[in-house]
Amino acid sequence: MNHPERLQRRVSARMADIDTFHVVAVVTRAKELEAAGRSIVNMAIGEPDGPIADPIAEAGIRAIRAGLVRYTGGLGIPELRRALAGWYQSRYGVAVPTSRIAVMPGSSGALLVAMGVLVDPGDEVLMADPSYPANRHFVRTVNGRAVCIPVGADSGYQLTADLVERHWSPRTRVVMLATPSNPTGTLIDFDEMRAIHEVVRARGGVLVVDEIYHGLTYGRPDRTALEFADDVFIINSFSKYFGMTGWRLGWLVAPEDCMHDVEKLAQNLFISSSELAQHAALAALTPEAVAFHEQRHEAYRAQRDFLLPRLREIGFDIPVEPEGAFYIYANCSKLTQDSYGFCMDVLEHAGVAIAPGIDFGTHRAAEHVRFSYPKPIPVLAEGVARLERFIKR
Amino acid sequence: MNHPERLQRRVSARMADIDTFHVVAVVTRAKELEAAGRSIVNMAIGEPDGPIADPIAEAGIRAIRAGLVRYTGGLGIPELRRALAGWYQSRYGVAVPTSRIAVMPGSSGALLVAMGVLVDPGDEVLMADPSYPANRHFVRTVNGRAVCIPVGADSGYQLTADLVERHWSPRTRVVMLATPSNPTGTLIDFDEMRAIHEVVRARGGVLVVDEIYHGLTYGRPDRTALEFADDVFIINSFSKYFGMTGWRLGWLVAPEDCMHDVEKLAQNLFISSSELAQHAALAALTPEAVAFHEQRHEAYRAQRDFLLPRLREIGFDIPVEPEGAFYIYANCSKLTQDSYGFCMDVLEHAGVAIAPGIDFGTHRAAEHVRFSYPKPIPVLAEGVARLERFIKR
Repeated sequence: MNHPERLQRRVSARMADIDTFHVVAVVTRAKELEAAGRSIVNMAIGEPDGPIADPIAEAGIRAIRAGLVRYTGGLGIPELRRALAGWYQSRYGVAVPTSRIAVMPGSSGALLVAMGVLVDPGDEVLMADPSYPANRHFVRTVNGRAVCIPVGADSGYQLTADLVERHWSPRTRVVMLATPSNPTGTLIDFDEMRAIHEVVRARGGVLVVDEIYHGLTYGRPDRTALEFADDVFIINSFSKYFGMTGWRLGWLVAPEDCMHDVEKLAQNLFISSSELAQHAALAALTPEAVAFHEQRHEAYRAQRDFLLPRLREIGFDIPVEPEGAFYIYANCSKLTQDSYGFCMDVLEHAGVAIAPGIDFGTHRAAEHVRFSYPKPIPVLAEGVARLERFIKR
Repeated sequence: MNHPERLQRRVSARMADIDTFHVVAVVTRAKELEAAGRSIVNMAIGEPDGPIADPIAEAGIRAIRAGLVRYTGGLGIPELRRALAGWYQSRYGVAVPTSRIAVMPGSSGALLVAMGVLVDPGDEVLMADPSYPANRHFVRTVNGRAVCIPVGADSGYQLTADLVERHWSPRTRVVMLATPSNPTGTLIDFDEMRAIHEVVRARGGVLVVDEIYHGLTYGRPDRTALEFADDVFIINSFSKYFGMTGWRLGWLVAPEDCMHDVEKLAQNLFISSSELAQHAALAALTPEAVAFHEQRHEAYRAQRDFLLPRLREIGFDIPVEPEGAFYIYANCSKLTQDSYGFCMDVLEHAGVAIAPGIDFGTHRAAEHVRFSYPKPIPVLAEGVARLERFIKR
């Protein structure tokens, strides 16, 4: 009754362009090895470690007990939208009207809605290569064209106003930035972001800024594009700084005159975000929870400060200091010409899981790997020792 | 700095075709009236009433305490996928391999992934008019074309094999059915569904069946399309029978050879479903929870049996007995020629909230309204009394 050959032709053309997360193959194999008794140091997945903040857990439990597990409005519960407006005021000194803040089912939901509201078939979206894997696939899902612009150490792995100008075409609608960046951990220079905004605005495009890793910077303070622009789309998340990955909650800030479109698309695509997660997220913004997040932030800093020089010592080239997120994007070309094979070998023979560059684009992907460092320092030390033995074998 | 006139032109063309949920305007106004001290009988929103089953709540609390609030695999935790395979075996006597079951962030997520995997720009998706509002918008989001086929009482508001044949075009890729249907509460005849499957299969298309309201039928037992086909996409949800709306969890069953595409699209669009909700859902499938769901199911039956004759008595025409879900789709053409205005008037003057037909399509939408009846019978009685006074005023 099944017709595999016919069904395979029946899937949409877009599926040929949508990649799996290659890191999942690494993690799946890592789990198999662990199940077989091997010890694995896992620096592959971009997920905070350790427990969730108590106020978040307690608020989640209270929400369940109170039966706050129903549909909410498509843009989220008013209390959380107001609390996020308060967050912009207290954290950045920026006034953002509550009406422009849309709670979404993860920054994933925010990215999908942003692309759905902005991108028509054939429209081009400029983004850095390397960047977060799903970005180009959100664009492809709505039949836009992701234009992945090769960036390197010279621009801190970020787009520049000059690059945006040079890649602009009549079909360009959107420019996406991420600061701090996944996978590189680098920040964009604030004045450069302003200059990019000027270029985009002058051409009638829209700037989308991924601020998902805000809160996790180790030098310069976070500054949001909302400081200078109210015509940008801002993507943010409760997953990283707030550590709430598995609750699936994020938010979008959009221009006032796009909010009706944001709301109707979100209603149709998601109905609403998890009510339970929204109540837990309210607690994530309280001073008690923020004190916890800041402690974890300092732990990440210490982990970064430990790992960065050691990776350089054992042969990885890291030309740009990662100043944010919890990633180190390392050039491994002195060690291998095939970073994917290297990741698999390192996993099999050294018991260390890291992410291959291919997940993040194609530009020099085979020369790069990504380390995710939210791990206790002794675990990182063990990982480095194993890598060193593998490299010098 | 803001350029509203320019931004309005900058949103994607699809946004002109994506409607808001009109019921939200009803509910928003209902809340305003309630805030001003008015009593409102709310039969507008399609949401189970009453508390969540204890085993679900307790499992959710245990998951939070255990820190099970992380990313999971893109297709869900293996335990839940296995438990759903067990559900198909015990509930329907149908063997569905775990590998074909994908846990999704709501049936919303399942519908989006199904459309993304199947529909290219310009491809046509046949569906009944009236049907669930978001269905046509999922299709539009991926730039397909929803072909909404007028159906009426004669076919139980369901598509038929004949209708599918007559509307088939070279661009048709997908036929969507929903049984029980939202908004009509009607079931498709099982043999007719088989016949539709034959038509679709013979033409190289794919049948997608929304079984979201399975478990909530009041005459004929549920039968899944998986009984006779392994080349269909099945959409289901923990929101309705299991009462877990605000946890945002559902699932998709897809043909084996599409699962790689389902997984990679889901990874990119959502990363994963809520881990917390997945552990709660495991408890929703236990005998203790199912006993609770069955009690609620019987309460819905009593509510339906109460409401249906009374609506007919006061002037609504309900030519097809609703045998499932928790909706009554009523023709109000003896009372009004404008069901949206009628809903707003009934809300303002009688304090009763119901959903206008326009949410579900365009075919005779102005002659229909939808009642959602999961309410205690005294509340339904008060609603009917208010409606009767309004109608006879």
